[in-house]
Amino acid sequence: MSHWGNLSSTQLKQLLSDEESKYEAFKTRGLTLDLSRGKPSPDVLDLSDGLLGALDTKLASDDTDIRNYGMPYGLPECKKLFSDLLGIPTEKITIGGNSSLALMYGVFTNLYLFGAPGGVPWSRCEKVKILCPCPGYDRHFTLTDDFGAEMITVPMTDNGPDMDIVEKLAATDASVKGIWCVPLYSNPGGVVYSEETAQRLASMKTAAPDFRIFWDNAYGVHHLFEEHTTPDILALTESAGHPERAFYFFSTSKINYPSGGLSFVASGSENVEQLRLHLGKQTIGYDKIIQLRTVKFFGGDAESIRAHMKKIAHILRPKFELVLSALDREFSDTELLTWTPPKGGYFVSVNTRPGCAKRVVALAKDAGAILTDAGATYPYGADPEDANIRIAPTYPTLDELAQMMELFTICVRIASIEKLLKENA
Amino acid sequence: MSHWGNLSSTQLKQLLSDEESKYEAFKTRGLTLDLSRGKPSPDVLDLSDGLLGALDTKLASDDTDIRNYGMPYGLPECKKLFSDLLGIPTEKITIGGNSSLALMYGVFTNLYLFGAPGGVPWSRCEKVKILCPCPGYDRHFTLTDDFGAEMITVPMTDNGPDMDIVEKLAATDASVKGIWCVPLYSNPGGVVYSEETAQRLASMKTAAPDFRIFWDNAYGVHHLFEEHTTPDILALTESAGHPERAFYFFSTSKINYPSGGLSFVASGSENVEQLRLHLGKQTIGYDKIIQLRTVKFFGGDAESIRAHMKKIAHILRPKFELVLSALDREFSDTELLTWTPPKGGYFVSVNTRPGCAKRVVALAKDAGAILTDAGATYPYGADPEDANIRIAPTYPTLDELAQMMELFTICVRIASIEKLLKENA
Repeated sequence: MSHWGNLSSTQLKQLLSDEESKYEAFKTRGLTLDLSRGKPSPDVLDLSDGLLGALDTKLASDDTDIRNYGMPYGLPECKKLFSDLLGIPTEKITIGGNSSLALMYGVFTNLYLFGAPGGVPWSRCEKVKILCPCPGYDRHFTLTDDFGAEMITVPMTDNGPDMDIVEKLAATDASVKGIWCVPLYSNPGGVVYSEETAQRLASMKTAAPDFRIFWDNAYGVHHLFEEHTTPDILALTESAGHPERAFYFFSTSKINYPSGGLSFVASGSENVEQLRLHLGKQTIGYDKIIQLRTVKFFGGDAESIRAHMKKIAHILRPKFELVLSALDREFSDTELLTWTPPKGGYFVSVNTRPGCAKRVVALAKDAGAILTDAGATYPYGADPEDANIRIAPTYPTLDELAQMMELFTICVRIASIEKLLKENA
Repeated sequence: MSHWGNLSSTQLKQLLSDEESKYEAFKTRGLTLDLSRGKPSPDVLDLSDGLLGALDTKLASDDTDIRNYGMPYGLPECKKLFSDLLGIPTEKITIGGNSSLALMYGVFTNLYLFGAPGGVPWSRCEKVKILCPCPGYDRHFTLTDDFGAEMITVPMTDNGPDMDIVEKLAATDASVKGIWCVPLYSNPGGVVYSEETAQRLASMKTAAPDFRIFWDNAYGVHHLFEEHTTPDILALTESAGHPERAFYFFSTSKINYPSGGLSFVASGSENVEQLRLHLGKQTIGYDKIIQLRTVKFFGGDAESIRAHMKKIAHILRPKFELVLSALDREFSDTELLTWTPPKGGYFVSVNTRPGCAKRVVALAKDAGAILTDAGATYPYGADPEDANIRIAPTYPTLDELAQMMELFTICVRIASIEKLLKENA
């Protein structure tokens, strides 16, 4: 099976017919699977059900009544917990609601309506371009597109975005205003940004004085195998003389619950001041009850979060191992699929032969299994190669996942053979 | 005391000296009171402590796992509860986070960045003017100011804003894009908008095709004395052929908890579609756990919310009665202060003689009692008469409130006599 490109059309047609039979047989199982999003499974969520239990106090450590107005930027003990966990000074942290995406949207809203501190509102710039390392996170792209910014694709390497390209674009084009980064276990590739990548991002010359790094550390403690650490972008930008360059986002969506969790944003002092100024105009304070619930659940101890993440990894690891071993078994000696095993996080990113991804996703869907839309990992939903597919193994059970990989294998084969036949025609 | 204007300077100086002695004596009590904001008191919050208790299910009525992603615009049973309570069709409702102010800010963000459906983004309009019935809610004004809109003061009557003025401004000036309304028990006057006022708002001719009513029904079920109802602005605008004219905001901040409550926005179908489009770019969903907690707390029954509000009124009414009887006792036969008893809500609005409000608030502050800043009830914090003061009686205890009114009386007298002396000089 390794060199299908050498097969005759007749041989390919025979192979196709075999796979199509398997596909039709699979369809009769009447499966309905949704693997489109990076959702925690119920048994992972169950690990946090202490959050649903009774809360035995109404007062924070400083006697703030958590039910009432006040403390708009977060309870001190909650800031301290995440400061301890991630090594971010508490004064840089502003705690938000249950969605870090909403904080990102808020930061973009500020930049567009008011500009960076001392800068011009981005809505008044003739052109705003945002660098998007790809494959990347679709919600970053749809958010960026909502503001009408042009998205510039930058290829990913094993150490993060290709910094030669990033540096060149940032240095030469003043309309290049920012870059999206998921520095640890990137979505979807599971790539870990190297210290050098972060150092170069922090210190590079930018034509735009208000260039911003949107540092979405969504998987900052979401280890699966070996434990890696996130480069300290806030310290690096500060040392490099660009203390306002980075916005650091984090959430407990995949630590506790996606709904009913909390998020934060951290940045330099001028950004923090601006953020709080405008946040103060739009809310009298986020939910402090969930903040205290979160602190109490972990006993206020960052080590306890790390221990909790080990329990989650214990549930997730077999799912990733199942996917990776299926890929190995079915595709390692073929030219049909390439992938790099993720170092952690929530996804496995694979590349089909050019022009096959959309067809694979469509075939899977017709057989009852919804994958993330092909192209979603690129700006405008347009993968120039039509090759990348994001597999999200976290939600389904092992049994569902095994069936999924069986179907996925069939779909990749069918799409690949169809493509070869077209090329031969 | 009734006609201080007829007194000689010598007589006034003697009166001033008496009041100053009382003031200095009061100061020695070393009181610290904060009456600046409309905060619920702990005993009112205690009524909702069922929300802190254990939640015995993880599933909504349609089997949605409330801990996970999904159902971004609100749980069906939660929409139904507020639909039943306020007579708003569920399909018009989008449930948000704990802050209706954040939803208002989101609506403004949409209007500024994207425009009303079919319209031009307000950020591209040379001028945007928003009508602000006054005295009004300071946070509406600071929000509006954050977007750089010009705020036009409109006087309040006993039936809502002076509609002759509103109609004229809206009909003749295309840069007049909207109006703030707190239709039931307005902040701070406690005024109830009449059906006629709402009807005229809904049907009036506007020069701007994208004129919007920001209908903040913050006190929609917050009766204190006789029960009043909010005019059905969504039905009225729809009947008048302007189905997209009104945004209706509501929250449980002063039903359950300010922190850890929920909010919603309701509007016409085009607005709802646009809202959800952009909300979908900034969050994968608000906190559904608090939604289900809220539904369970009230047994899914709107009547149970009304019964709960009666318990709250039972706690609040004596506070309002204390303030109103103190005002009556001390000022009814004077020219120093005017007020109209609020019909409900959270505040008592009083007017000093012109030019005295700032001085009253400063005097109270020096004696340890923080009132809402004088001027806060007007755009730009600038009350042209320097007369209006918002008293927020909900948070303090009855004893604190009695002391507060004692101090307030002294401060009003001192400020008034000082003013008279200046006028006589």
